Amino acid sequence: MAVRMKDIARDLGLSVVTVSKVLRDHPDIAEETKERVMKRVRELDYQPNVLARSLVTGRSYLIGLIVPDLLHPFFAEIAKALSSAVRAQGYSIILSSSEEDPSLEAREIQQLLARRLDALVIASAAENATSFERLERAEQPYLLIDREFPELAANFVGIDDIAAGRLATEHLIQQGCRNIAHICGGNHSTGVRRYEGYRQALRAARLPFSESLVTGHIHVDTESIRHGAEAARYLLAQRTRPDGIFCFNDPLAIGAMNAILDAGLRIPEDIALIGCGNLHYDASLRVPLSSIDQRSTMIGERAAAILLNMFSSKKRPQPVSVILNPELVVRASSLRKPARQSGTRASAPCKSSRRH
Amino acid sequence: MAVRMKDIARDLGLSVVTVSKVLRDHPDIAEETKERVMKRVRELDYQPNVLARSLVTGRSYLIGLIVPDLLHPFFAEIAKALSSAVRAQGYSIILSSSEEDPSLEAREIQQLLARRLDALVIASAAENATSFERLERAEQPYLLIDREFPELAANFVGIDDIAAGRLATEHLIQQGCRNIAHICGGNHSTGVRRYEGYRQALRAARLPFSESLVTGHIHVDTESIRHGAEAARYLLAQRTRPDGIFCFNDPLAIGAMNAILDAGLRIPEDIALIGCGNLHYDASLRVPLSSIDQRSTMIGERAAAILLNMFSSKKRPQPVSVILNPELVVRASSLRKPARQSGTRASAPCKSSRRH
Repeated sequence: MAVRMKDIARDLGLSVVTVSKVLRDHPDIAEETKERVMKRVRELDYQPNVLARSLVTGRSYLIGLIVPDLLHPFFAEIAKALSSAVRAQGYSIILSSSEEDPSLEAREIQQLLARRLDALVIASAAENATSFERLERAEQPYLLIDREFPELAANFVGIDDIAAGRLATEHLIQQGCRNIAHICGGNHSTGVRRYEGYRQALRAARLPFSESLVTGHIHVDTESIRHGAEAARYLLAQRTRPDGIFCFNDPLAIGAMNAILDAGLRIPEDIALIGCGNLHYDASLRVPLSSIDQRSTMIGERAAAILLNMFSSKKRPQPVSVILNPELVVRASSLRKPARQSGTRASAPCKSSRRH
Repeated sequence: MAVRMKDIARDLGLSVVTVSKVLRDHPDIAEETKERVMKRVRELDYQPNVLARSLVTGRSYLIGLIVPDLLHPFFAEIAKALSSAVRAQGYSIILSSSEEDPSLEAREIQQLLARRLDALVIASAAENATSFERLERAEQPYLLIDREFPELAANFVGIDDIAAGRLATEHLIQQGCRNIAHICGGNHSTGVRRYEGYRQALRAARLPFSESLVTGHIHVDTESIRHGAEAARYLLAQRTRPDGIFCFNDPLAIGAMNAILDAGLRIPEDIALIGCGNLHYDASLRVPLSSIDQRSTMIGERAAAILLNMFSSKKRPQPVSVILNPELVVRASSLRKPARQSGTRASAPCKSSRRH
């Protein structure tokens, strides 16, 4: 049987109110009483009932985190950083995966909403903002990460995805590529903007754009390696074979890498390849993979800072948007020219702005 | 402001008790009243207060999961499978990472214990069972995964780690290796038993055992790729260079692979390599990596089944131990002989036993 506060009170001949005040470190308790209570707390291995505390404070000390795929290390890194950052303040993370399924995400939001958590953090798989409008109506604090809904004045932390697409494509151009293909992401802000960045870089370099060099699936699901291979095989079968491919993310790029090598072509000599995400095993792949670093740890940390500030504010603060700069990381898969650029990292300060 | 039960009662001229009965699908309410209440529930987008429900039922509908490293896909796969399996029953997962630090794990257990969760699931980084004895005393239901404490009569789901070590080492012997090294795991049941399996396989084949061919770190931390590379460099510097290496897990094997290739040696011709874990990017590495499949998804599913059975039982069931069979997965990193063995998979049924 779990030890209760009244057991400690009875043992020491004190009132429950006194014991409770000691545990909340209330000032009007004598030092000696405090010591007696704390000694008994240790002896009995007493655990305060967080559930009861929650009903009093109105706080659950729980933050819900919904990501599209926990197996994607990008989201695992965000979860890890967010969890570490809020742990010290007594907050725990309820984790949920939407499996890139908008209807599953809506149900999970519904279920977590019913738990009255202190905040929800969501990398959304949804194609519209319906669920978030519902969160607004229920006055449930929340924060979006990675994927944004421009029509929503919500807290957001992510990278500048147009810059990510531009950086990757400009790098391939600098390496001498002229027929640059793109394996797309889904129909979220990240997929749409990286594609926009790709288009911008081609335009700026006066390189032709060809529909036949853009492929991908509307729905980026959890089998990205297989889809990357399929997309690359499609590109290799085009009349104009690409000499460079920018992939929406690293798992797609890994699949593309396998398909290119299995077709007997060389990377980067025949086709230069770059992904996005800079996952921690990128350097150990069949050809070490160039990528765009998406600042996953920083995304988790910034999200935590916004939430903790929100929890400690008396009035609900204005929504904040933090846009981090992506960073080019060059490895063998795209390095056709002498390594002058290797290690070059974007260093402009990140943007952080209040929403209006 | 969130809609409360009493708002619905007032709007319809009913008592709160009646509304509450409708929401719990209580039989003694007229069908017409039920429909009126449910219509209003939908109109107002009412969310039941799970916190209040928890106080009534004594259930939190929360399961705590503590893993050593969320970035290790093995643990991410378990988390994903466990979460999917309990979600349909209304349970959510509170996720915590111990970062392979026993004292951080003890603090996390302490914090989650205070939350009175319905169960804790732990892949422990601890070197002794102190924390779990505390859970026993507090009558906190829990289940161990992956790493076992033989002295503890606890619920457990994991693989037969002695068999895993034996399978991997026997495979290297069949491929013609004679000086087989082992890059060890930590001082947990998994590390100790895979090492024991390695020793057993050498003995059975009458191959000599050499201390100089066993290396590793007592503490398998979250920088396994780097540690695997260091361990391999140490082995390459020995007087008798190994011709095969069995690594405790795949991240260590990836590090070893990088170090071996960077030293100008060939895999598998000079050194055959096998890991353990069968992570989902193993096939895309510089040399596709042979491994032992640890049944991560099945571990999550079996753990969920034990928990759900526990929650639905009136009396607390006897602890159950589920030992799954590991499976050899052969890829290029160890394949020196014609591929007769490729695709061979162990198929003996798993063992499941009641604890005494």
